[in-house]
Parts: sequence; structure tokens; C-alpha cells
Amino acid sequence: MLNIALIGCGRIGRMHAEIVRAYPRSRLACVHDVHAAAAEAVRGDSDTALAESPEAIFADPAIDAVIVASVTATHADYIEAAVAAGKPVLCEKPIDLDFARVKACEAAIAGTDVPVQIGFNRRFDPGHRALRDALAAGEIGKLVQLIVTSRDPSPPGRDYLLGAGGMIRDMTIHDFDLARFMLGEDEPVEVWATGAPLIDPDLRKIDEVDCAMIVMRTAPGRQVMLNNARQAPYGYDQRVEAMGSAGMLQSANRTEHGLLRFGATATAAQTPYLNFFIERYREAFALQLEAFVDLVTGQGAEVPVFDDGLRALALAEAAYRALASGRSEPVTV
Amino acid sequence: MLNIALIGCGRIGRMHAEIVRAYPRSRLACVHDVHAAAAEAVRGDSDTALAESPEAIFADPAIDAVIVASVTATHADYIEAAVAAGKPVLCEKPIDLDFARVKACEAAIAGTDVPVQIGFNRRFDPGHRALRDALAAGEIGKLVQLIVTSRDPSPPGRDYLLGAGGMIRDMTIHDFDLARFMLGEDEPVEVWATGAPLIDPDLRKIDEVDCAMIVMRTAPGRQVMLNNARQAPYGYDQRVEAMGSAGMLQSANRTEHGLLRFGATATAAQTPYLNFFIERYREAFALQLEAFVDLVTGQGAEVPVFDDGLRALALAEAAYRALASGRSEPVTV
Amino acid sequence: MLNIALIGCGRIGRMHAEIVRAYPRSRLACVHDVHAAAAEAVRGDSDTALAESPEAIFADPAIDAVIVASVTATHADYIEAAVAAGKPVLCEKPIDLDFARVKACEAAIAGTDVPVQIGFNRRFDPGHRALRDALAAGEIGKLVQLIVTSRDPSPPGRDYLLGAGGMIRDMTIHDFDLARFMLGEDEPVEVWATGAPLIDPDLRKIDEVDCAMIVMRTAPGRQVMLNNARQAPYGYDQRVEAMGSAGMLQSANRTEHGLLRFGATATAAQTPYLNFFIERYREAFALQLEAFVDLVTGQGAEVPVFDDGLRALALAEAAYRALASGRSEPVTV
Amino acid sequence: MLNIALIGCGRIGRMHAEIVRAYPRSRLACVHDVHAAAAEAVRGDSDTALAESPEAIFADPAIDAVIVASVTATHADYIEAAVAAGKPVLCEKPIDLDFARVKACEAAIAGTDVPVQIGFNRRFDPGHRALRDALAAGEIGKLVQLIVTSRDPSPPGRDYLLGAGGMIRDMTIHDFDLARFMLGEDEPVEVWATGAPLIDPDLRKIDEVDCAMIVMRTAPGRQVMLNNARQAPYGYDQRVEAMGSAGMLQSANRTEHGLLRFGATATAAQTPYLNFFIERYREAFALQLEAFVDLVTGQGAEVPVFDDGLRALALAEAAYRALASGRSEPVTV
Repeated sequence: MLNIALIGCGRIGRMHAEIVRAYPRSRLACVHDVHAAAAEAVRGDSDTALAESPEAIFADPAIDAVIVASVTATHADYIEAAVAAGKPVLCEKPIDLDFARVKACEAAIAGTDVPVQIGFNRRFDPGHRALRDALAAGEIGKLVQLIVTSRDPSPPGRDYLLGAGGMIRDMTIHDFDLARFMLGEDEPVEVWATGAPLIDPDLRKIDEVDCAMIVMRTAPGRQVMLNNARQAPYGYDQRVEAMGSAGMLQSANRTEHGLLRFGATATAAQTPYLNFFIERYREAFALQLEAFVDLVTGQGAEVPVFDDGLRALALAEAAYRALASGRSEPVTV
Repeated sequence: MLNIALIGCGRIGRMHAEIVRAYPRSRLACVHDVHAAAAEAVRGDSDTALAESPEAIFADPAIDAVIVASVTATHADYIEAAVAAGKPVLCEKPIDLDFARVKACEAAIAGTDVPVQIGFNRRFDPGHRALRDALAAGEIGKLVQLIVTSRDPSPPGRDYLLGAGGMIRDMTIHDFDLARFMLGEDEPVEVWATGAPLIDPDLRKIDEVDCAMIVMRTAPGRQVMLNNARQAPYGYDQRVEAMGSAGMLQSANRTEHGLLRFGATATAAQTPYLNFFIERYREAFALQLEAFVDLVTGQGAEVPVFDDGLRALALAEAAYRALASGRSEPVTV
Repeated sequence: MLNIALIGCGRIGRMHAEIVRAYPRSRLACVHDVHAAAAEAVRGDSDTALAESPEAIFADPAIDAVIVASVTATHADYIEAAVAAGKPVLCEKPIDLDFARVKACEAAIAGTDVPVQIGFNRRFDPGHRALRDALAAGEIGKLVQLIVTSRDPSPPGRDYLLGAGGMIRDMTIHDFDLARFMLGEDEPVEVWATGAPLIDPDLRKIDEVDCAMIVMRTAPGRQVMLNNARQAPYGYDQRVEAMGSAGMLQSANRTEHGLLRFGATATAAQTPYLNFFIERYREAFALQLEAFVDLVTGQGAEVPVFDDGLRALALAEAAYRALASGRSEPVTV
Repeated sequence: MLNIALIGCGRIGRMHAEIVRAYPRSRLACVHDVHAAAAEAVRGDSDTALAESPEAIFADPAIDAVIVASVTATHADYIEAAVAAGKPVLCEKPIDLDFARVKACEAAIAGTDVPVQIGFNRRFDPGHRALRDALAAGEIGKLVQLIVTSRDPSPPGRDYLLGAGGMIRDMTIHDFDLARFMLGEDEPVEVWATGAPLIDPDLRKIDEVDCAMIVMRTAPGRQVMLNNARQAPYGYDQRVEAMGSAGMLQSANRTEHGLLRFGATATAAQTPYLNFFIERYREAFALQLEAFVDLVTGQGAEVPVFDDGLRALALAEAAYRALASGRSEPVTV
């Protein structure tokens, strides 16, 4: 039974708390949030303790591992603190919005063997994972084209947007990682991007986009397209398509249940797609925790690590340079 | 180039005329209808001749083959006349509504080698045919259950119903034949049926049903279910499902085109199914003619013959006996 | 927090144990099995107690409710004991294989207000439930035909079969209940059935069938078809189709994830269906428990009750009479 | 009855011949090919005449209209000759591989009211057309993203490639036009492209690619992605996806028939997609001719005209500039 501490009790922190509690091999030992009320709400009438500070958590010998779900600006600090304290950490993405800070964090933890897992939950989605496994098994021969579609059901509020570092750092970051997961050893070396506030033109005032198409090339020329929108009226749209020399694979959208409707204007109509990431990736989040527990308990697990967080951000940086220059930009790590 | 005469220029006759004209190996040499205007409309400004009578057609040495699309009551007479005249005939189903008349016709043409093909067009539908071929190739092992769904888009008028001989002789007849086509050598030996006027309760006044479920058993116990309705608001519903010891096959519905709609209440919604048999089975009707031409020109073709028409009607008779008795009734040919 | 006792720690009992533990409003207080090792395995190192006997459970004031997952022959006894002890009970189906015993149990508990819920878990499947809700909301007008397909992935062992009371009492019982759930107030009044050992002909020696088609009629003539097989090589096949005067609804099969494969011989190929009921109906079992907890805590819940268990069995009895007589048999409750 | 002459009797010419003959409002009056045997094969034993030269066709007062399906290098000449002779022309794409030649042709026919239709057949595909109509009707609100997938089943031979002007001029040209068709008045103003010989690396020797991703932007920022491959092992892949502010539309692939297979490794598997354009776009080619006949007979028809051919080529030119420069290139017409 792994004693896990949770830092950050917002929407995604609450979800982590539920998952840790439901998983037989983990226990939610304590929680912390800068807003004490949020931490207390997560504790409820359970036996979870309230930690006075992150420092208290890192210092507590009873804590086996830490999940960081606090605001992005704190991620790098907590990763460094966790590693210094020898506590394995599962940290939400992104590591930081500032690439230099991420590089500094990388330097600070260099050489550690304390496990650092980044919260790229989509790698654990059974459909995406099955696609990756089929790819790796050579089921479609050589991969030539990869298309990742990722559209949120509805745009976040203006407050969120102002602190999120831009759609491509905030939202596309998942797709950069998912693409890298599918590509295996073959890293994107060049990025091109276009983006605009097409759904909410007012976003122009804060220099933000809500629709983007991003194309990447790997060294041998494989083509990757990421396709984002902040609003999909039919639900959270999450698809991966891998085209190969011997076949094609798609990881398709999922509905809540299997009801199909047949009427005068539509046949075999499915229900709207699962909203939102907590529903769509529920299984993925649970499998992510399972992998973290495996990692921490030394059973080995294939998980996204610090370097994956850094490389996804490097792709976002290149995409922003491409948005500004209008040309393909090399990826610098 | 086969010179074909057409008797009967109603809705289905007009469709046959178009198909004969569009097919490079056949020519619509002449047409006849008891309503001269209907025949003239089919002729139009083409070089098709008008025949004064069916007799004139059967006597005309320039006619290579005859398609009979006149009213049901004339079918058996024209089959007998065609055979007597040595003219191959493609006759619309059913042969007759009166089983005794069909048996008499059978006796009258016994021993002939003049080709007599019955218009069970669905055997030529590419999906149904592919299902049959996969079955015959052993793709799903032993067949154990067969389900044929056949629902018309909207009910015919009262006039039609009064002359059609009852839904099970008029509409289900196609499904009896399709089931036999799928079963191969293994004939249904027992039929049970339930039916009621569920969509239009007024049909009770003319002792007619508009929804039916019919279950048949073959000698080794294979189970066949036919499932009919005179009204399907989402379009013409035509499906076959074959369950086997090693897999399942379905011949699914078809839409006019591939548009899918995704919105707030429905995703991946297809358009309504093709209405009606002329649209849904367009390809089947064309392939039916191709087979008829092959048959007439001695190239061999697997087509439904007189005996198939008789056996489909025998199943309808057993179904009506079962409706009356409430029990499984043996099939008598 | 509801303290629940579990009687019976076989495959389905273990699943109930997991669900009770994972649900925040319930606690697995104690377990019992005639095989002590099975109960101990469920206890593991948890704080669940081992009960020496069912009687000890019924007598324990700390137990709020009981789940019965022991062998069928004990169900009616435990229901009676639970009711006598004032303990709400969720009992697996069927109540008993002997209809007379079920009637005796009905008499024994007559007049009680102790909640008795029968484990017809499929009523809680989100797809089936959404279909029922759409039906009840009049989305497809008047229901005219209902088709329930239920095929197990692979046949049970001979030992199981010898004690299961026949496929129609053991397996179809779920479909009888599901049909009744969809029909609402309109009860089937007549049943006809055909069945045979088509997959494993050896079953004839134990007078058992492995494929069946059962057709039921309600008083106003609605038509219901149940379609069963003990083996479906493509996975657990669980579908409901409801045909109405204004549209059609289908509750379709579910796959483990959304991977689609496209290759030289197949396109858009899904993965095999979820095997078996524990996987396919995982959500349904959890929602069933949620409803039970609601029921016990007086919050109201729409659940299958004793009378539903009795009526499903009455339909099975009529089906067996129909198998023997070859005719439609009236339903006697 | 429109008397149509056909110039060019290769694969696509033969298809046009069949369509002209099958269409009741047109007659294949005469044919010409530089290879007399090809023209004779099309004539067969029909009443179609053989024309000695294109000039003879343009001079023949009995010819109402001309279809040009000869090699690309002749297209502009024949368009000019047809216009000069006052003969309406349906010319296969592209107008020419050399943009300057296309501009010269434009100048040569400036001011004419002789109908010139370019063979962008995909505009007439019922699925693509229904998508366009739904878009135009505002069904998905404002269009924000458009994705056109176009993958040929297998690569053409080296000879074909050497004369085809590059994949983006030869194959993507259709997708440029299809995108413009969907966009309506809103023209792409900027193009970016990546391409590589990923399937057949040997193509590098002839400076050719076989996989490409092309992204375009319209003035208000709408995003368009074209996605091409010369080989799709699962069949001819032809899809359009339109994402809007209020919904999404997809024009999906089509199979030959509706057979679905269910087995131990795959469920609901469709058959491979229709191969190749003659099969997939059969209906589109027929509807294209119908529109041409409407246009010629003054009944009005919405067809792709010379300017559409020119603008599609201008997009290809910009794409090639982008391939070379690595940056977005403006579109110059």
C-alpha cells in the first residue's frame, strides 16, 4: 500500500484524490492546497491527513510518493523538492510555461534516480495505447503519416486563458506528447503552425488563438499533423490516425453508452462524445496511477518522464516560433 | 444483343425497361400493357415497338425473351404461354397468390428446359450475395441462426393491400426466398408466425397485419427469424444477420451517400436509408438482368427458378396456417 | 455508510465484493461462503469480517443489508430469512429454478416492506437504460417490435449446465426481464419458443439446448423476439432493438476501446466485444449497487423487485411449455 | 439529345464514353485518339463515328459539345480550339502543368460565353455535395477547419509519374479544388506544404514525393489541411471533414456493399474501400455529365469552370514554392 500525498486540490487534484482512493494499492495519506478549504473538502470525513505545507509533505517519512496537481508555476519547484527529498513524484503537465525554467529544473535534478513521471495521461488511454502497440508491432508496416485531432468541448474562461500560457503550451502540449509516444524513437525535428481565434475573435485582444493546425516532420520525413480547437459542439473530440505502408489505424472517439437512434432525418446516430477529459480519460487516469505505483515500487513501468515533459514543451516553443515566422522551425531541446 | 419484350408497364415494369435499355447486352424490343398509355409512355421516342397483346409477343420470332411485370393474377398464365412458345421468361414474384394455381402451373411446364427465372431480386444484392458467398465458403463455420429484417418505409394504399394477398404472401415472400438462398440445401421444414396490425389498427377490418415475426426451423434445427413491418420511419430497412459456430456476418443497410453529422444531440449520424426497393436494390435489379441474359444465352447463371417461387409461397402458406393455429406448422410443397 | 454482508464468494460474489468496496456509500462488513477459503480470499487483509453462517449475518444488528450470491437453490431461503430479519436484500437471479418454490417464497414474504431487489443487472446498463428512457419518453412513438439479442462468448462447462436448470431459465431469464423492462406496463401474455443444441450437439444427451429463438406477444399484440446462443466467437453479444411507429432505437455492443483497423481485407474493424458479463456490465453492476443503497436508505430507486423475478421465471416456464408443445403458450403467474 | 465528341480514348476517355452512352440525354457521336486502335475499341460495333482529327471534330456542325480526355499537354490547345469553334467543352484536369500556359489560355478565351467546364468530378460526389450543401445552409455555423484526406490505393508506374508534373499538380489538384468548393467565396491566400517519398524512397531520384501534408489559410484565417498519399493498402481513401462553430460534418468513405464481418479478432469489419476513382466516383462522373448537358443546353448548372482550373493550379504552384522555401507562400493567380 503506497502512501501518497497530493498537492493541489482543484478540479484535477480532486480527480486524482478519487483515483488514489479507489485503487487498492494506494492510499491518500495527506493533501495540501493553498486554499485550506479545498484541501478540507478533499479530506471530507476520511482518514486522509491535511498537510500544513508542501515542505511538511516532502519532510514526512511516512509519505512514499507525491502527486503534484497545483498551479503550473509551482510544478518545477515541487519536482526539485521531491527529488531532493527522495520522493517519487507524478507531476501534472506542463512542467513550466517558461522553457528556461524547465531546463534549469532538468539541471537541478540531473543524475537522480528518483522517479519523476509527467501527467501525460493520454498515453494510458486504452485505445491510444492499443494503437501504439499495434504500430510498434509493425501491424501497418512503416508509419508515414500521423494525425492527432484534439478539440475541447467548450472554451475555458478568460481568467484561465490569461494564465495558461497560450493554447499551444496548454492544450496542444498533450498532442505533442501523444505524437512523440506514437513515433517512438523518431523525434520531430521541424515544426510549422497556423492558428487564429476563429471561434471567439475577441481572443485577438489577448493575443490568443482557439483553432490551430500544426505540422511536424521527423528526420526521415514522417509527417505529423495536430489539429486543435477550443470548442467542439458535439463533445470532446479525441482521435489519432496512423497511416502506414501496410494499413491504417484509428483510435476513435468514445460515447457514454451504445444507444443509436434511427429517425426521419438521421440513422445510426450516436450520442455526443464524452465530456470532458475527466470522463473521456477516466480509465487513462486510473492506468496512469497504476503505472506510477508500479514505477515507485520498482516493478518497472513505461511512463512519460521529465525528458518527455521537456521535449513536448520544446515542440510548443518551436510551434510558437513558426506562428511568428510563417516558416518551419527547427526543434531545439 | 438479346431482344427482350416486356409485359406490364407499371412502376416495376418501367424500372425493368430502363434496366434493359441501359444494359449493353439487351435491347427492349417491344412492350405491352393492358393500359396502352402506360406502354406508350415506356416506348417514348425510342425504337421500342408496342405489342398489341401478350400473345403477339409470344408468337413473335424476333423476341428472344420475355419479362413479365404485369399484375400477379396473370403471372402463371404468361409463364405457361412463354414456356409453350419456347421463350425464356423472367417473371416478377409471386407466381400466384393461390398455391393450387402455382402447382398447376408447375405441372403444366414440367419437363421444360425453357428457362424460367423468378424475380427474387434480393438474391443479387451485392451485400446479401457476399454474405451468402462467405457462408458457403465456411467463413463462419456452421450456420446456426439467421435473422432477416425487412421493413418497408411506408405502408401501401388500401387498394394495393386488398389485391396483394396479405403481407406475408406479398412482402415476406422475398424474405422466405432470401432465407432459402442463405440456407442452401437445408430447407425450412416448420414455420411459426405472429402478426398484427400494430401501425394501422384499422387494417383489422380487412383482416390484414402490418407487423410480423416469423420463425422457421430446418430439419437439423437451424433457426431462422423473419421480421417485417410495413412502416419504418427511418427508411427501407433491409438487413440479414447470419450467426455461425465460428463468427457472424451482417449485410447492413445502405445510405445514399456517406455524409455524417456531428452535433449537440447526435454524432456520426448517417442519412436515412435508401427509399425504396427501386433505389435500394438498383444494383440487384441490374445484376438480376445480367444473370437472366447469361441464362438465356446459355452461359449458365445461378438464378431463382420456378421451384424457388413455389417453395417461397409454400412457406407463406405454412405461415398463414401458423397464424391461425398458434402452432408451428409443417411446410408442404 | 451502509454495512453490507455478502453471502456467496464465487465469481459473481467476488465481483459484488469489489463493487461494494469501491462504492463510497457502502462498506463490505462481512462475508460468508460454504467454502471458508473462498470467503477468506475475499476478506484478504481488509477489515471485512468472516461470518460463520448466513444465520449469523441475519442476526447481526450491525448489518444493514445483504447481498445473496450463493447457489440458486439457496436464494429463496435467504430471501425469506432476510425479510424475516428485516434486512434488505439484493439477490442474484433466478429466485429458484422451481416455480412452485418461487410462489411459496412470494407467499412467505407477502406484505413485507423490507426491500427485496433481484439482480437483473442489465436494467442498469447505461445503453439499455437510455433506450428504455427514450422509449418511455415517446421518442419512437408506439413500440411495435422488440428484439433482444443475447449470446454468450463461450459455453459453460457440463457441470454448470447440469445445475443451471436449462438455458432458458438460466440465461434467457435476463432477456425476459430486459424485455419486460422495455415494455413497461404491457406484459407478455403468450410465449412461443424453438431451441436446439446446434453448437454442441452432444448437449442432446442432457436434454439441453444452446441456441434458442423465443417470440412473445403482449395483450395489444406487440411482438418481442429473444435470440440466444451459448457461443459467440466474436465476444459477448448484447443488443436491444426497439422498433416504433416513429423511429427505431438500438442499444449496441461495446468494445474495450476505440481502436479501428484498416487493411487489405477489412476496414474500420473494431476489436471483439467485451468478454464477459463482468466486463460488459461492469458499470451496470455498480449502478445496480447504487440503486440498492438508495432503496435501502429510503431515497427511492427504480429496481427490479421480487415480482419481477417471479414474472421472468413465469415467462421461462411458458417457453419450456412451448418448446414441448410446439405452440404458443399463455403466461401463468 | 446532345451529340458529344470525345477526344482521347485512354482509361478515363473510355469511362466518359460509357457514361455518355448510358445517359439518355447524350449521344456519343464521334471519338478520336492519336492511337487509332484506341478510338476503334471505343467505337466497337456502335454507331459512333471515328473522327480523323480533333480539327475535324471542331469543324463538324453536327457536334454539339466536346469532352477532352487526351494527354494534359493538349488540354489548353483543345480548349482554345473548342472555344474558337463555339463548341462547349468539358476538359479533364489539369488545364496544363505550366501555369504560364494556363494564363495564356485564359487570355485567349477571355470574354467567351462558350461553356468551358473542368473535370473536377469530385464536386459531384453525392456525399461531398451534401456536405457542401449542409455547410452552405449554415448547418454547422461558421466553418473553421477543413480537412481533405485523399489517398490513392496504389502508386502509378514510373512512366506515368515522369509525365504527371509532380504529385501535387497531378493528384492534390483535386483536393485544392474540393477545398475551394467547400470554402465558397473565401479563397485560400497562403499555402504551406511538406512532402517526401516515404512509401517508395526511390522516388527521390526523380525528385518526386508520395506523401504530403498541405495547409492553407484563407483571408479570415480559416484553416484547411490536405493530406495525401500515393498508396493506401485498405483502398481508395476519400474523406472530407468540416469543423464549424456549431457542429461537424464528414463525407466518409464508401464500400462496395454492406457486408460486415464479426470474428475472433475483429468485429463490424467492413470490406475495403472502393478501388479506384472510376468505381468510387462513378456516380460523380455521371452527375458531372448531367451538369455539363444542363450547362450546354442552357438550363444552368453549377460547374467548375476555367477559372477554377486556374486557381487550383495556382494553389499547387504555391505549394511547390512552399516545399522549396519551408515557409508559407502567398497564392498568386
